[in-house]
Amino acid sequence: MVYKGLIEKYRKNLPVSDKTPVISLHEGNTPLIPARNLTDKLGFNGEIYLKFEGMNPTGSFKDRGMTMAVSKAVEDGSKAVICASTGNTSASAAAYAARAGIKCIVLIPEGKIALGKLSQAVMHGAEVLEIDGNFDEALNLVKELSSKYSLTLVNSINPFRIEGQKTAAYEICDSLETAPDYQFMPVGNAGNITAYWKGYKEYNRAKPEKYALPKMMGFQAAGSAPIVEGHPIANPETIATAIRIGNPASWKTAEEARDESDGVIDKVRDEEILEAYRIVAAMEGVFCEPASASSIAGLIKYIKLGYFKNANPVKIVCILTGHGLKDPDTAVANAVKSKKVKADTKDIINTIGF
Amino acid sequence: MVYKGLIEKYRKNLPVSDKTPVISLHEGNTPLIPARNLTDKLGFNGEIYLKFEGMNPTGSFKDRGMTMAVSKAVEDGSKAVICASTGNTSASAAAYAARAGIKCIVLIPEGKIALGKLSQAVMHGAEVLEIDGNFDEALNLVKELSSKYSLTLVNSINPFRIEGQKTAAYEICDSLETAPDYQFMPVGNAGNITAYWKGYKEYNRAKPEKYALPKMMGFQAAGSAPIVEGHPIANPETIATAIRIGNPASWKTAEEARDESDGVIDKVRDEEILEAYRIVAAMEGVFCEPASASSIAGLIKYIKLGYFKNANPVKIVCILTGHGLKDPDTAVANAVKSKKVKADTKDIINTIGF
Ligand SMILES: Cc1ncc(COP(=O)(O)O)c(C=O)c1O
Ligand SMILES: Cc1ncc(COP(=O)(O)O)c(C=O)c1O
Repeated sequence: MVYKGLIEKYRKNLPVSDKTPVISLHEGNTPLIPARNLTDKLGFNGEIYLKFEGMNPTGSFKDRGMTMAVSKAVEDGSKAVICASTGNTSASAAAYAARAGIKCIVLIPEGKIALGKLSQAVMHGAEVLEIDGNFDEALNLVKELSSKYSLTLVNSINPFRIEGQKTAAYEICDSLETAPDYQFMPVGNAGNITAYWKGYKEYNRAKPEKYALPKMMGFQAAGSAPIVEGHPIANPETIATAIRIGNPASWKTAEEARDESDGVIDKVRDEEILEAYRIVAAMEGVFCEPASASSIAGLIKYIKLGYFKNANPVKIVCILTGHGLKDPDTAVANAVKSKKVKADTKDIINTIGF
Repeated sequence: MVYKGLIEKYRKNLPVSDKTPVISLHEGNTPLIPARNLTDKLGFNGEIYLKFEGMNPTGSFKDRGMTMAVSKAVEDGSKAVICASTGNTSASAAAYAARAGIKCIVLIPEGKIALGKLSQAVMHGAEVLEIDGNFDEALNLVKELSSKYSLTLVNSINPFRIEGQKTAAYEICDSLETAPDYQFMPVGNAGNITAYWKGYKEYNRAKPEKYALPKMMGFQAAGSAPIVEGHPIANPETIATAIRIGNPASWKTAEEARDESDGVIDKVRDEEILEAYRIVAAMEGVFCEPASASSIAGLIKYIKLGYFKNANPVKIVCILTGHGLKDPDTAVANAVKSKKVKADTKDIINTIGF
């Protein structure tokens, strides 16, 4: 059967009916890519897989939640959606709203979203408002606005978002024909870790003999690590703008995922994030955005800590939440520069030292 | 069966053996998205589908050819690949070479490639050389270099590129369970139209009763339309930098595709391209790069010309060759701007006029 998006695929596990108009861009069904070069480089005795969510239609995992949230909004007669965003949510909301033919209003922190994400929201015809405040303030504003006006909130506090996003855990299990032992992932507003944990628990409940529960390993950026520090961060900072969040909406459920799974929520420094970002692009050919690389940075940190020392060979999945194309400026600033040469073979051969 | 890339999927139709090391990022298997809003807007009596090749791992159709070209290069013992590029070929070559652990050298026209594409090549660790010349000059240089040094050329004159790219035609047929009546697509160096036509002919030969042959409708940008004008263009110009090519390598096979299929190769102006680019993002939620939008611009032109007047309801596929995220600058320059507001609900409501 031809794949037609995650609602069609996992319909029986989702709160949809025949009456739900399915607004889809054929999101989901993203690859689980073996990372053998990275495994060798780290001298790691186990299997590492990359769940490359950058291959969703708008380039991030947000599309999984948005196909659900926008389909349900349309089913409920909504004519407009609203969200606060560090960039990916707004790109996705704008795309699905465009497809549904409804309005989309997005609030973003001024100057703090990556260029690619901004280009998406405007091209998809959203009304894009840059506020003089950070993500947490934007989220408070859209909560207030959606409670007073007929605007459907499509941040991840909208439960349909979590329902859509949990399908990524299903796909990993379907693909491996077992559950991974550990899942490494970035944590920002903490909706995604909540969603994965829900997905894994559902598969486990349905077939406990086949699908065990993975340990959930979440990573925040050191300058924006409220869950790790145990209190909201008033002025979160990090180069990984997608997870520059000081007061996560799904804080409690993220801690539940960590505790129920016997996992960890920890932090990684910006330098570790950038190093992981370069390594995965240069060694595996997978270009993710900086926030996504915090999963790899976390894995490297935990391998170095000897965390897996006494474990049998294990299966590890790292979630790469968004495509590197979302943030070309950070890439160009952090890679070896291109060189200018004459249109002449001799000049070229000299330059490449052949 | 879990999808593992186009070589595994279409192995029996491709020049690979058990000895070929498959270098894959799970490319291909891209969605064929129905464009109902566009169909309605154009008042068109038929079905329009978008083949969204932007959902490949590096964001363009080039990955289809590159998984083949790099796998075969590695099979042949090559330690380095080289290409000329308007940006997407180099992004893809760099990614697959990184995964294969071999060197990649790319020649690009100075200042004329989109930011996203440059960010990919450098992040994947390619040696990126910006030459003071255009794509056609860069292609001549890499041809000469690959003939003199042990560098494998991975432009589309490498026949394995065409083999990989033809699988997109297979997928369209598999997805529709028939062939489309018309296929609209951009034409630059003309490898892709050559590849699609090969793919359609192969399916037709294998099952003529099921898969008829579509008419191939190729579109060049008006300032870079050598095939349409009937002679090379010394200084090609267009905003669609991916198809800014004055002397296509696969000129002859593109004309064969056109003539054998009773199709057309025509041109569209930059304004038509930009208009199509905005429409498909705003109405269908699909963000493609400017060059890709020339397929939609071509379709709009031919509907207006009354080209389909006497045809029965037809199935049309438009190929969207690359993701809009590849070129955020063109997007931001051509969309309605974001607005700055205070972090205050009243200011927001006034701005959005609710
Ligand atoms: C690329 C990327 N990674 C990770 C996250 C964090 O996800 P969550 O907010 O669900 O924790 C986000 C959220 O914006 C994101 O855009
Ligand atoms: C996005 C995009 N569309 C279309 C083309 C044209 O393809 P071809 O050169 O095979 O005609 C290219 C080639 O660079 C491209 O990058």
